[in-house]
Formats: sequence, structure tokens, C-alpha cells
Amino acid sequence: MKIIVDAFGGDNAPLEIIRGAADAVAAYGYEILLTGSEEIIRRVAEENSLSLDGMEIVDTQDIIRMEDHPKSILREHKDSSMAVALRLLSEGRGDAVVSAGSTGALLMGATFIVKRIKGISRPALAPIMPSDDAPFMLIDCGANADCRPEMLVQFARMGSVYMSHMFPREGGPRVGLLNVGTEDTKGGELQLATFPLLKESDLNFIGNIEARDVPAGVADVVVADGFAGNVLLKTMEGTVDMLLKNLKTALRSTLLTKLGAALVMPGLRMLKKKLSTSEYGGAVLLGVNKPVIKAHGNSKAKAFTNAIRVAAEFAASGAIDEIAAGARPTDQGEAE
Amino acid sequence: MKIIVDAFGGDNAPLEIIRGAADAVAAYGYEILLTGSEEIIRRVAEENSLSLDGMEIVDTQDIIRMEDHPKSILREHKDSSMAVALRLLSEGRGDAVVSAGSTGALLMGATFIVKRIKGISRPALAPIMPSDDAPFMLIDCGANADCRPEMLVQFARMGSVYMSHMFPREGGPRVGLLNVGTEDTKGGELQLATFPLLKESDLNFIGNIEARDVPAGVADVVVADGFAGNVLLKTMEGTVDMLLKNLKTALRSTLLTKLGAALVMPGLRMLKKKLSTSEYGGAVLLGVNKPVIKAHGNSKAKAFTNAIRVAAEFAASGAIDEIAAGARPTDQGEAE
Repeated sequence: MKIIVDAFGGDNAPLEIIRGAADAVAAYGYEILLTGSEEIIRRVAEENSLSLDGMEIVDTQDIIRMEDHPKSILREHKDSSMAVALRLLSEGRGDAVVSAGSTGALLMGATFIVKRIKGISRPALAPIMPSDDAPFMLIDCGANADCRPEMLVQFARMGSVYMSHMFPREGGPRVGLLNVGTEDTKGGELQLATFPLLKESDLNFIGNIEARDVPAGVADVVVADGFAGNVLLKTMEGTVDMLLKNLKTALRSTLLTKLGAALVMPGLRMLKKKLSTSEYGGAVLLGVNKPVIKAHGNSKAKAFTNAIRVAAEFAASGAIDEIAAGARPTDQGEAE
Repeated sequence: MKIIVDAFGGDNAPLEIIRGAADAVAAYGYEILLTGSEEIIRRVAEENSLSLDGMEIVDTQDIIRMEDHPKSILREHKDSSMAVALRLLSEGRGDAVVSAGSTGALLMGATFIVKRIKGISRPALAPIMPSDDAPFMLIDCGANADCRPEMLVQFARMGSVYMSHMFPREGGPRVGLLNVGTEDTKGGELQLATFPLLKESDLNFIGNIEARDVPAGVADVVVADGFAGNVLLKTMEGTVDMLLKNLKTALRSTLLTKLGAALVMPGLRMLKKKLSTSEYGGAVLLGVNKPVIKAHGNSKAKAFTNAIRVAAEFAASGAIDEIAAGARPTDQGEAE
């Protein structure tokens, strides 16, 4: 198993990426192919006493930045560390790509370099998120602001296949349609048109779900258009941040609360770990021919190690073949 | 000032409503008109030693329930406590209505009994929510799942007028368009078409805002279609619930954390109060001819007292006249 890692994406490149990759080699024995400036990678590794054993470097000088237009990955920045990583993947030089760089560029590059699965209208960006129960997949979280009902059904299928491989659950992953209420007749035009399609599908469709119940873990696959999904994702993140910040202030408000805070710290650490997104390796890009994982821009070494592990498990799972088989109406009949 | 209160809406009717109304009479000297079964109201008041001084009762036997179709407020349930409250408001028997009953029915009733302001396409449901900074208005939070750009502009105007009266801020309320990114060119068709309209308006439009920044208080008026607004509202609620529940568990996990929990409790109570929605009286129904306030279904006495206060302040503010003046293109010219 060889994972291609963009060593120059995200806020903590390349140190935390190299560290995460080294940990992944040590823990799981994967081969790693890093893309980026070989000179800088070797220097940073040496300065931080990190072993590059089990790692290969493909030297690239250019970097695509957050402020660059996503399309530039196909043109001005076609030799950036991210673009080269995707090209190596499409050429079969590795089994999956991990990048913490610009989401828009990664989506654009994956769609046009790794290419869409035949029959899939639009790839989706699907983060794995913590809930009070098990982790769940939110699909789509922003790749497609405007969606048609057929796209949501494809998202549901792709998410269901992924989760059934990665987080198996008896009866199949519970697929819920994000809506403003749980009744069958709720929602706007998009949801009203999508509901019957999901209802008559062979997915484990549990019906409409409310955003209120998502953090509790009501579904394993939360299906939404990219706009609403993005609002859900970012509201969860913003609310957790705001609460933890206020909690900190509250715990420091008096001498007594400060003393209490020291005593409750182990409990709070447990809570923080439970709600941490770094355990699940970021977002999966579903609908392209090979596994592409988008790590969070602020990922540290541990998040990269996890993202690399998730990428390897995804590559080994056969999920993409299953998505491809289901996406082609002509093949579907044979497969069943 | 006379506030009409639906005594049979919500989970805690009628006891908590009567208690909240009695507190409002005592604290602010408002007159209250309760709609509902006079017999039950008098019995519950007596059993709980609550004074009905300053309160008038209009006897109604029927109640509209959560499971009833919203439209039934105009037909089968046109003599329910909620329908009668709205009819009394439209007849000028009071200055505002407060109800904690079915949102759909209240919206339907307000639209067709109290009636839309001339020139307003669709009334909106706009909760006042706590943020890390000041409270903000989210408009719309679910009355209109599918919106046109002109509707969002009306929401922005109505919200801006309301907030400028109720929570004045120098330079006017900061109006933000909920979007998937802060750049001007972000979003789906709806946001792309709405952005220039808000940009060229005379509102204090601060541009696109991300859901991530909403809990921190980035804007005073958060403009969204009802679907995305509903997702934002319910994700915030669900995330706060999930976090506080987990925090409780974490604080009880060991003997030491239990001891610490006792010490940090004052800080946590402060935090809970800051994030409590009951301070702001629920959601405002904007776009109809008179003030209608939707209290949260699970409101207790204190939330009702606050909702009654907000209703009275809204009625006294002149905000509806200002919205009406701005909503009529022919009048707008004269007003300026």
C-alpha cells in the first residue's frame, strides 16, 4: 500500500505532514510518496530528527495556495505539489492521495486529473464527523451549492457504500435526508423531490432528519445539498469553538472555579478527544476514480497519520469499485 | 399596553403561561388578555396561588395541537385559543400576540388573520439568538424553505429595522448573508443573485458570512433562506445540547471530577445563562401587520415573561410602521 501525500498543503506544512507520515510508516508499515520540495523536506526532517525511511519524494517546486483560484491547479499550478500528487495517483504510482491544501483546488484537481467515476454527475466532499454516538458522514459539505434530486441520491449511495466498508453497522448505514422536520412532507422543492427517490431505493433510508438530531448521531450518512451541508458543518464547528472558549473563561472566573478546573481537567480532556475531528482523517472526496482524502487545513501530525490510515483503508476496501458498479445503470443489472 | 397571550400553546400550558403572565403584570404593569378555557385557567391559577389581577380572559374551548395541519387554524380550529388570539389582535383588542403553540399554525394564522404587510412577499420567522458577543437575529429560520433573492432582501430590511429598534448599534445593525465562504463570489444561485442587491441597498451590509462565525456574533442580522436558516438554528441547539450533556458526564466521571464539578458550578451557571435563548423571548414573526411572537414550545414562566416584554417593546417601537413604509415602493420615495 502506497499513499501519496502532498507535503505542502495546509497551515502546518511540511513539518507536521512529515511527522505524521513518519508515524504512519512506523505504525502501519505503509509506503509513502511525498510531493514537494525535496530540499526543504530533507532539511526539515533532519532538523527535527525525523526518519524518511519508507518514504519516496517526488520533487516539485510549486505550491498552490488558499488564495489561488481552484482552476489554477489545471494551468498555472499544474506542477504544484497537489497537482503532481493527483497526477501520480491517476498514473497508478500510488493507491490514494492525502492533502490538507485548498479544498477548491483539490476538488477541481481530483475531478479533472483523477476524473469522475463514469455515471456520477458530481463528486462530493464528505467529512467524517464525531457525534455523541458513532462517527457519521456528511455528504455534501460544500462541493455543490446547488443540487438536483438525482445528485442527492448519488450522494446517499456513495456515502452508504463508504460507511458500510469503513464503519459497518448491521442493516447497513442509516441514511437520513437533512430537512426542516422529520415528517415525510417537509422541506423545499429539492427535499420533496428527493424523498420518494430515497424511499424507493435499496438504501437503509430512515427518512427526513433534523439538524438538531445530527450531533446526537441520528444517522450514519447525512445527505444534504452542499450549501445546507456546509452550514451544518460550520455551525457545529463554530458552536463547539464558542462553547469551549466560554467554558475556559467560566472555569477561570474565580479562585474556586480555577481549583475545580484543575480537578475536572481529565474529564474535559476525554470530552475534547471524543469531539475531535482529527481521529477520522478529515473529509473523503467521493465520486472520483481513486481515493482522495482532504485533511483539515490546520491538521497536526496525528491528524495526518489518521488521514493516511483512512486513505489506505479506503483504498483497500473496494468501495470505489462498488460505487462505480452502482453508478452505471447498464452494469447494475448484471451485478445484482 | 395590552398583550394577548395564547394560554394553551406549548408543552407547559397553561400553568407556566399563567405564571409568566402574572410575573409580567407585576414587573411591567402590562394588561394581559389570555385566550383559552376560562374554567381551567381559573382553576390552575387558584391551585397555584397565582393572581389573575390585570388579566382578562376570552373563553375558548378548542386547542390547535402540534399534529394538526397548519391550515386547520383557518377552518376546523378557527375557534382555538391561538386563532382567537390572532383574531382579537387583528380587531385591535390588544397590541401583540404571544404563543408557544404550533409554529406552522401560528405562521398560517398570522399571515391570513393578522395579514401580511402590503408589499411584503412572505412573512419570515426570525429567532433572536445568543452569541458570544450580542444577541443576533436569524431571518428566516424555516417559514420559507425556497426563497427568491427579493425575499432575502426583504428579510434583510425587516430584520435590520427590528434590530435597530430593539438592539441599537452605531452605524446600524450589521447585516450578513449566510454563505459557504466570505468572498463576494461564493454561494449558489440564490446567494450570487442576492449579494449585489444587498450590496447596493442602504443597509449596513457586511457581506457574506460563514456559519462558523455566527455563534461568535459576526452579524446582528443573519440573512438566509428558511432551509439553511433552519439548519443553522437547529445545529446550534443540537450541538449545545450534545456538548452540555457530555460535559455533565465528563464532570461526573471520577470522584475528583465530581469534587471539581461542585467548585466550577457557578462558572457553568453563568455560561448556561449566557447561552440561554429564554432571555430574548423566542422568535419574531416579521412581515405581518401586528407584532406576533412565537415563544419556544418548551418555554417556562420566565421565557413567557420575557416574550411578553419583547412583544410589548416591539409593539411600542414603531418597527412595523417603518417596515410597512419601506415595503411600499410608492411610499418609499415620499419617506426619503
